[in-house]
Amino acid sequence: MIVVFRRDVTPEQLERVIEKIEAQGLRAHLSEGVSRTIVGCIGDERKLADVGLKAMPGVEQVVPILRPYKLAAREFVDGPSKVTVGPARAVEFGGKSIVILAGPCSVESLNTLVDIAEHVRDRGAKVLRGGAFKPRTSPYSFRGLGREALEMLALARERTGLPVVTEVMDPRQVEEVSAFADMLQIGARNMQNFDLLEEVGRGRCPVLLKRGMSARIEELLLAAEYILGKGNMRVVLCERGIRTFETMSRNTLDITAVPILKRETHLPVIVDPSHAAGRRDIVSELAAASVAAGADGVMVEVHPRPEEAVSDGDQALTFAEFDDMVERVGAIASVLGRWELSGKRRAAEAS
Amino acid sequence: MIVVFRRDVTPEQLERVIEKIEAQGLRAHLSEGVSRTIVGCIGDERKLADVGLKAMPGVEQVVPILRPYKLAAREFVDGPSKVTVGPARAVEFGGKSIVILAGPCSVESLNTLVDIAEHVRDRGAKVLRGGAFKPRTSPYSFRGLGREALEMLALARERTGLPVVTEVMDPRQVEEVSAFADMLQIGARNMQNFDLLEEVGRGRCPVLLKRGMSARIEELLLAAEYILGKGNMRVVLCERGIRTFETMSRNTLDITAVPILKRETHLPVIVDPSHAAGRRDIVSELAAASVAAGADGVMVEVHPRPEEAVSDGDQALTFAEFDDMVERVGAIASVLGRWELSGKRRAAEAS
Amino acid sequence: MIVVFRRDVTPEQLERVIEKIEAQGLRAHLSEGVSRTIVGCIGDERKLADVGLKAMPGVEQVVPILRPYKLAAREFVDGPSKVTVGPARAVEFGGKSIVILAGPCSVESLNTLVDIAEHVRDRGAKVLRGGAFKPRTSPYSFRGLGREALEMLALARERTGLPVVTEVMDPRQVEEVSAFADMLQIGARNMQNFDLLEEVGRGRCPVLLKRGMSARIEELLLAAEYILGKGNMRVVLCERGIRTFETMSRNTLDITAVPILKRETHLPVIVDPSHAAGRRDIVSELAAASVAAGADGVMVEVHPRPEEAVSDGDQALTFAEFDDMVERVGAIASVLGRWELSGKRRAAEAS
Amino acid sequence: MIVVFRRDVTPEQLERVIEKIEAQGLRAHLSEGVSRTIVGCIGDERKLADVGLKAMPGVEQVVPILRPYKLAAREFVDGPSKVTVGPARAVEFGGKSIVILAGPCSVESLNTLVDIAEHVRDRGAKVLRGGAFKPRTSPYSFRGLGREALEMLALARERTGLPVVTEVMDPRQVEEVSAFADMLQIGARNMQNFDLLEEVGRGRCPVLLKRGMSARIEELLLAAEYILGKGNMRVVLCERGIRTFETMSRNTLDITAVPILKRETHLPVIVDPSHAAGRRDIVSELAAASVAAGADGVMVEVHPRPEEAVSDGDQALTFAEFDDMVERVGAIASVLGRWELSGKRRAAEAS
Repeated sequence: MIVVFRRDVTPEQLERVIEKIEAQGLRAHLSEGVSRTIVGCIGDERKLADVGLKAMPGVEQVVPILRPYKLAAREFVDGPSKVTVGPARAVEFGGKSIVILAGPCSVESLNTLVDIAEHVRDRGAKVLRGGAFKPRTSPYSFRGLGREALEMLALARERTGLPVVTEVMDPRQVEEVSAFADMLQIGARNMQNFDLLEEVGRGRCPVLLKRGMSARIEELLLAAEYILGKGNMRVVLCERGIRTFETMSRNTLDITAVPILKRETHLPVIVDPSHAAGRRDIVSELAAASVAAGADGVMVEVHPRPEEAVSDGDQALTFAEFDDMVERVGAIASVLGRWELSGKRRAAEAS
Repeated sequence: MIVVFRRDVTPEQLERVIEKIEAQGLRAHLSEGVSRTIVGCIGDERKLADVGLKAMPGVEQVVPILRPYKLAAREFVDGPSKVTVGPARAVEFGGKSIVILAGPCSVESLNTLVDIAEHVRDRGAKVLRGGAFKPRTSPYSFRGLGREALEMLALARERTGLPVVTEVMDPRQVEEVSAFADMLQIGARNMQNFDLLEEVGRGRCPVLLKRGMSARIEELLLAAEYILGKGNMRVVLCERGIRTFETMSRNTLDITAVPILKRETHLPVIVDPSHAAGRRDIVSELAAASVAAGADGVMVEVHPRPEEAVSDGDQALTFAEFDDMVERVGAIASVLGRWELSGKRRAAEAS
Repeated sequence: MIVVFRRDVTPEQLERVIEKIEAQGLRAHLSEGVSRTIVGCIGDERKLADVGLKAMPGVEQVVPILRPYKLAAREFVDGPSKVTVGPARAVEFGGKSIVILAGPCSVESLNTLVDIAEHVRDRGAKVLRGGAFKPRTSPYSFRGLGREALEMLALARERTGLPVVTEVMDPRQVEEVSAFADMLQIGARNMQNFDLLEEVGRGRCPVLLKRGMSARIEELLLAAEYILGKGNMRVVLCERGIRTFETMSRNTLDITAVPILKRETHLPVIVDPSHAAGRRDIVSELAAASVAAGADGVMVEVHPRPEEAVSDGDQALTFAEFDDMVERVGAIASVLGRWELSGKRRAAEAS
Repeated sequence: MIVVFRRDVTPEQLERVIEKIEAQGLRAHLSEGVSRTIVGCIGDERKLADVGLKAMPGVEQVVPILRPYKLAAREFVDGPSKVTVGPARAVEFGGKSIVILAGPCSVESLNTLVDIAEHVRDRGAKVLRGGAFKPRTSPYSFRGLGREALEMLALARERTGLPVVTEVMDPRQVEEVSAFADMLQIGARNMQNFDLLEEVGRGRCPVLLKRGMSARIEELLLAAEYILGKGNMRVVLCERGIRTFETMSRNTLDITAVPILKRETHLPVIVDPSHAAGRRDIVSELAAASVAAGADGVMVEVHPRPEEAVSDGDQALTFAEFDDMVERVGAIASVLGRWELSGKRRAAEAS
């Protein structure tokens, strides 16, 4: 951390800042320039986070030098972390192959859910997504079937073998949802719901943490740090679009975040192009771009009849569109050495 | 709601959309233009929110006409609502006079808290603010004294007569915090924590709902709708800065939101210039601007020695700065007919 | 400027950076921390702007310490600059009193222009605004009467005594427009049209420089620096709203920029609430807020029959609305000691 | 266009709006709903753009239905347009194969320029980029060698056969720059410099139009419309990152814009990942993502020794990094059927 002083700082003000730095066990290294005096703080600058240096008389600016996250940082773990999901830990995020997660926005009925699950599994999806508790901007919108949907997800898993990921919104639901799901999703609106983060951090269920719609990359990593800090290291990050001034898409997919996150953290990174776009016609191109940018997976919404979906039908892919997307994504992942055929397709291709 | 069709829509596609609209009890009014056909939906368009019209084949665009909120809308209540706070309901938001809320970011010690409370009360503040549970971007930052702080707030109220407002972050805390506080604050990060909104909606304690840092005005009003819908009509809205590309202030105070909210809703609207600015030197001007723009009050952070504050010292006003702010704000409120002298000052001026 | 090195920097890499700094005539001051080595550059850091330190091997980050602008900086001039406008330099920006600029978006006809000019002058406006060359997002929109409008502006000035400000968009127009106007406006879209900035910088006509809709405050000041650097010191800055995600107003008025600019620069600062809002109903509150925040003036659009205006009628105030705005703004300016009655009104009040 | 009326609209107000619509030669189609009356305007709604409907008494909202651009719209041309560049029109944008444009940010010396040009040509680049006139945020930064650089570009073209693209900033330069360049670049800061757009629109030189850093997609297309409207149909669009709140990259590459533009317009679309990122380490992934998303080409900055570059060295690829990028981009383009080997490489692979 570097402290830059005002032009008119007095020796006494300077002295008091240095005392404060040294009181935290760091060393202060003074450097007098032509127009500004600066002090470099040598030691663990996280100790200075709450010390209020910037509010001290004579101080103009405080410049942090180190990343504020530790457990999520690339330096903490040697090489990328792999997060395994599912009964036999059969699905691996952050490994060689990319992972496709697919399913309906909301769970509506067992039949539709199983239809979707079977379809996407046969085309290469590894995880089934589906909302039981839905965060909705308006209280008048459909908000999920709750417990009933959790049971349907468990049945769909039984029938298809796909592990399931579903959102948890309230710390009081974590235990119940964990009993049904293989992976807990923290939605964009809850990325800084710190009590919820700590609650899932105390559990052992893998967590899919979505970036808040106006969260900086640094803030996403600090949110992950809340979970990691409680002992749950099985965290997968998800870029899902940020809020900007553009109106032709619901959000702006921050593709830049993908390679940056891969450099900043050891945690796996996936992309949700459906929520970024808010319109189904461009999901396939965005999914392909995500994989080309280095994402460890993509999560998309699929529905056999989007116009009958109870929520977010605009952005759900039909079965045919999903198949096209898998083809595009698969081709690109293959060329990057990141595509593993599912058992069924492998058999088909071998025959 | 208006449905705009694609140029190449077929009569069958058109027919199915009309059927769907009519199935919800609305009437469809067809209008064939030169290059597009449109259908106007006559009736309560909220019924169409989850029907998935936009996802239907042949549909290009769906344009809502009515506001999606109802209880928060200006049309719902005749004239501005007044929200009263405190044991004798002595403080009124949304009335003739503006309300100043002031206090430390975090509650640190009883002595400091009472010092601040007495000072700000004597200068005209009507409500004491102070954080017991603090949402912090980093898990390594100070996160509040919790229960202990709640007790200090209650003591400070006893000694000064000022009602207190403090933040609640977790639905499990609502009951406990309500037992101590006169007003519950929902912070910007929890504006779309829907379970929390409903929990405070089921209570009777007045709520101070802060705008999320990337929330549209419409979304703030829908968040209020969650609380109102559960029966708690005592909601005060708070603009506290939105996230933009500018870096010289922590956030950008959306002053435009103040007059817009005053037209859209009957709920009182206040402004928190401290969090918007993130720097103390401009808080006074921003507070004055807020009142000039029509705000029903301002909430600021105050600390006798900001450089010793355990959180957000950069933006806390010293006592002298607070006094200056009250003078500027009071002068402007007076000229707008919105300034009521506290008992003490009235007495002083009369003598 | 501070250079932060990567953890794995080699002594040779470090050496090369130091050599480069010293080659520009600055001194390098080395400070070895626990996890990072940093070098402070002592001397005029503007010399390092193009040296490419950040691109050198071993460098992680380069942190500027000084403001990049010089002539626009507060430190350059002792106290606020005053910019005078008009034949007798009768209008003063940056002085004790605020200045109201008003007029139509586009000049349409001499009669309407003179009607507006007389009305706003009688209520206290000091400068007449009116567009002759209009930047329009769409080529199909009305783009101004050009030369003809310039002549009308000159006639309106003759009849009313009000100096006129009008926009110049093309460096080739600067000479012609300067012959008619008392002040040249550089619009938001041209804030970084550097050739145009230099062209008006070479002239002697006062310049009203509007902030680009996604320009940081620092960039606005660097744009001003282009003009100042060519010798024209008569520059007035104008905040007119920035682009954000909010959709209920056309732009978001960055009120925070007003007190920040007043601290950063000696140049006068005004606000254009009409373009920020894009809707006339909230212009008055925004104008009042601007003055409360410390602006040196406000510029608004006025039209006797906004629904007949050839451009931007949505945001033009009617005469009655303008009068209300002047009342609100005047009351606030008075209380701040910044209101000077026009001769006519003074006479009226004295009688 | 649809006009939505206020709840309290009077029959007279309604009548006047209808008269105004019909006066422009459109038909008004009235539809009375339960809570709002609306009028659909049947005919060419562009005629209503300047009519001021929104400012008329009784009007609440005006909703455009059609796209405001015409010549740039997908409907105007059957299939994607191809824009050819270079002496023999040998380079084709918008065709089957993607195009790589590469070169230094600024032209510095003939030797370096030719070195770069030869290197990138041999790896598959088809166009040489290089700045002669540089728009720089600060007047103290290097602003290009001007005319001298234009001559070097012409020499580099002669030696390598690569057509050159370079930026033009001032309408007065268009003729001179056109004499040297094969393609004129309009930079992000000049996207709404309408006089410049029309000047290049009057010429016959192909234009590379970069998206403004806070321009909506619709505004980019309207900017293109200015050029097309003057008769120059050879326009290539370029996404180069938009301004957001994220600070780890200079801008946020709006990858979503690529598939949207490909649906909205017939014009070719390329991406400049160097300016979006502002840091060289992630350029390769972003370039690959752009091609996966459907871009017709990518433009990158290359420099043999980025730390010696006179501008933007942070984001320039070294030769080795450029080669890696071409490999990644080429692999993805191949799998999508959009990769054409250069003569040299084809020969090498054949042998």
